[in-house]
Order: sequence, then structure tokens, then C-alpha cells
Amino acid sequence: MTDAPFHIGFVLFPGITQLDFTGPLQVLHRLPGARVHLASKTLDPLPSDCGLDLVPNTTFDACPQLDLICVPGGFGVDDAMRDAAVTGFLKAQAEAARYVASVCTGAFVLGAAGLLAGKRATTHWAYHGDFATVGAVPVKARVVRDGAVFTGGGVTAGIDFALTIAAEIAGEDVAWAIQLSLEYDPAPPFDSGTPDRVPETVRSGVDARYAPRLAAFREALRDAGFSPSDS
Amino acid sequence: MTDAPFHIGFVLFPGITQLDFTGPLQVLHRLPGARVHLASKTLDPLPSDCGLDLVPNTTFDACPQLDLICVPGGFGVDDAMRDAAVTGFLKAQAEAARYVASVCTGAFVLGAAGLLAGKRATTHWAYHGDFATVGAVPVKARVVRDGAVFTGGGVTAGIDFALTIAAEIAGEDVAWAIQLSLEYDPAPPFDSGTPDRVPETVRSGVDARYAPRLAAFREALRDAGFSPSDS
Repeated sequence: MTDAPFHIGFVLFPGITQLDFTGPLQVLHRLPGARVHLASKTLDPLPSDCGLDLVPNTTFDACPQLDLICVPGGFGVDDAMRDAAVTGFLKAQAEAARYVASVCTGAFVLGAAGLLAGKRATTHWAYHGDFATVGAVPVKARVVRDGAVFTGGGVTAGIDFALTIAAEIAGEDVAWAIQLSLEYDPAPPFDSGTPDRVPETVRSGVDARYAPRLAAFREALRDAGFSPSDS
Repeated sequence: MTDAPFHIGFVLFPGITQLDFTGPLQVLHRLPGARVHLASKTLDPLPSDCGLDLVPNTTFDACPQLDLICVPGGFGVDDAMRDAAVTGFLKAQAEAARYVASVCTGAFVLGAAGLLAGKRATTHWAYHGDFATVGAVPVKARVVRDGAVFTGGGVTAGIDFALTIAAEIAGEDVAWAIQLSLEYDPAPPFDSGTPDRVPETVRSGVDARYAPRLAAFREALRDAGFSPSDS
């Protein structure tokens, strides 16, 4: 007996934070019947944020109807939000997909496609302040579900998100087995994964590095027709 | 002022469990001065375990001397252990590298290259029983350091491993900032990341799926000149 195919798609574009994508991919690929579609405009490899090119295996035009569609985040979101090829693909797929999802700032691309209107959702901690502008009801949590919309927080939250939706799709015993095979029993050597618990000097250093990125991001939001804060 | 270059290399081969590689890559790429080398025999994209091809950015021959060399695991380890191009590259790099490292079953490739003789080290939980045969002193832990050799456990342990070595290389404040930027405050939805804490039915199902893999793996160990158990 074979499992019924379950079509999982990731939306790829240049400048993805690769772990936003590769963490959930590792989990979801192990679902029974999983068919993984890595969709982009073309089949050309795409630069990620950390030296690894990402290779699509299908195009937006060729991709079949997906059961689950997931958008990763990263600095490339600035352009992806304003790219009608990306948002159009998302809108069209979302009409018949069972689940619509994002990790990290990929949530803003969902928002730009009009898929977060009135939906409780999460994103990377540094971007929560601008999240309502794309229609979301921001929730500071690692994984948020609102009906068919599942969102994960920043980067590594994608693993928790993926196990959550894996259980929804295939049952908890399947999710447990995947978690065991991936030895996901995290033991961070430091307790600095949220802005509330790091020393002020570390927080201010990270904030300083994000500042120019956030300025460019808000400009992209404006270009995409939204009204972010000016701070 | 710019940071001094710090050369980080990952050894790529077909059949890597991609998160073994992409988790640490996401962390280590953010080290000050990081230069990332994704080295393989050729520049051709390599199939991973989950539908994503991995694209090298250098070859074993062209790769400069590395400061840190890391070997990911996966089912491709069976062939990598027996591949003199892989083990030869590791041996040559290890002579002058500051740190030699692995994630998951990548530890067996280090072992096959003679780099774990008498070293305390860890690997994926399902493979600990055969670990001593390649010379390691097996330690059941998520991250193990023995001098210049750092090893991580199965798959997701690579993130904890990478933050540990990031602090060693660049200081804890740098590791804290990286952890914050990646929002690594894990909250697994289930407590099934180790074999000790899953229901027996889940454990036995995973064991049954691993059984043929382990049989092939032990055959590969024998081919590589080691003496695994027969169980």
C-alpha cells in the first residue's frame, strides 16, 4: 500500500534565509506521501543569505496544485512582496490549498498576497512592529495557527512550525517519529534566543545591525502599498 | 576595520541529510570574517536526502586551507567513508585546521579518515552502537568537544554544535547575537527527540525503518576496513 500523494510547495526567491526553508523542508519531506515542490520563476539556482545557492525543482507555471504552500523569509522578502509573479502564484495556489504557511518574514509575503487579512499570525521578533500593516493580527508566539493558516516565528521556529503542521496533517505519532529521527531534543548552549533574555549590549548590537535592514524593508512595504511605522 | 578571514569548510557528497549541513551553515556563516567553502569533488549539484540539490562552491582540489572543517551526515556516509577523495581531503585539511568537526553520522567519515582515534565524540543516537569501531570514544551527548574535535549528535544537534563552536571561535557575545538573530528559542511541540522518551510503538516503528539502513551502513563499515557488530 502506498500513501496518497501530499503536495508540499516552498516558494523560492533570491535572498532567502536558507534555514527558514531548509528546516521545515527536512521535517515535511518525511511526511507519508510527501511530494516536494521547490518553486520559483525559473529553474535557475537562487542565492541564499549564506553562500548556498538554492535549486528550484519546478517553476511557478509548472507547479501542480499544492496541498500545503509555505513561504520562507529573509532579506529577499523586500523584493518578493513587490513581485506579482510571487504574490500571484501564492494567491492562485491558496485558493485550493489545504494549508497556507510561512516562516519568519515570509509572513509579509503572505500578507502582500492578501492572505493574512484578519488572521492571527507570527513573524520574526524584529519585524512584529510592522506586521499589522499587511493585515495580520500579530501574535508573539513561536507557532500560530488561524484556521488553515500556520505561521512560524524567526528562522529556527520553522522546525517547531513544521512539526506542528506535520501532526495536523499526518497525526502525532508520525510527527513524533520524524522528531525522533531528526533527534530534535534541542539544548541551546545559551539562553539568548529572544530579545527579552539577552544582555542589553547584545540586544543593542543586533538592533543596530537590523536598523538599515528595517529601513529598507519599510521602504519596500511602502512600495508594496502598505503603511509601515516611521520608527 | 574588517574582521580577519575565518575559513569554514563543509564537505559535501551525495546523500547528505541536508539539515546536518544547513543548520550549522546558517549559524557559522554569521561569524565575523566568515568565508564559507562548500567543497566537493566537482562543482556539480549533489542530491540531498530531501529533494534539495546542494551546490558546491569549490572543489577539494581548489579549496584553500580551512580553519574549521565540518562533515555532515546522512545515508551518503556509506559511500563517503569508502571514498579516498573525501577521506584524503579531510586528512590533509585536518593537519593545519584549528577545528575538525562533524554533525550526525558525519562523525563516521571523520573516523574513516583516522581523525577520531581515542577522541570522545558523539553521533546520531541510532548509530552509537557502531561508533567505537571507527576509533571514537562514544559519548551520548548533543555536543562533545575533545580538544580541537567538536562533534554534534543527530541532525538538529548541528545547531547546538554550531553555537557552541561559534562561542569558542568568536566569544559568547557573538554567539548570543547569532542565536538572537536566528530566534533560536526552541519550543518543540512534542517531547519525542530522544529514543528514551517516545512511546514504544513509535520507537519500534523508527527502529524498523532504520534496520535496512543500518545493515547497509555496517556493510559499508566492513568495506572501509572496520569491524561493526552484527546485530
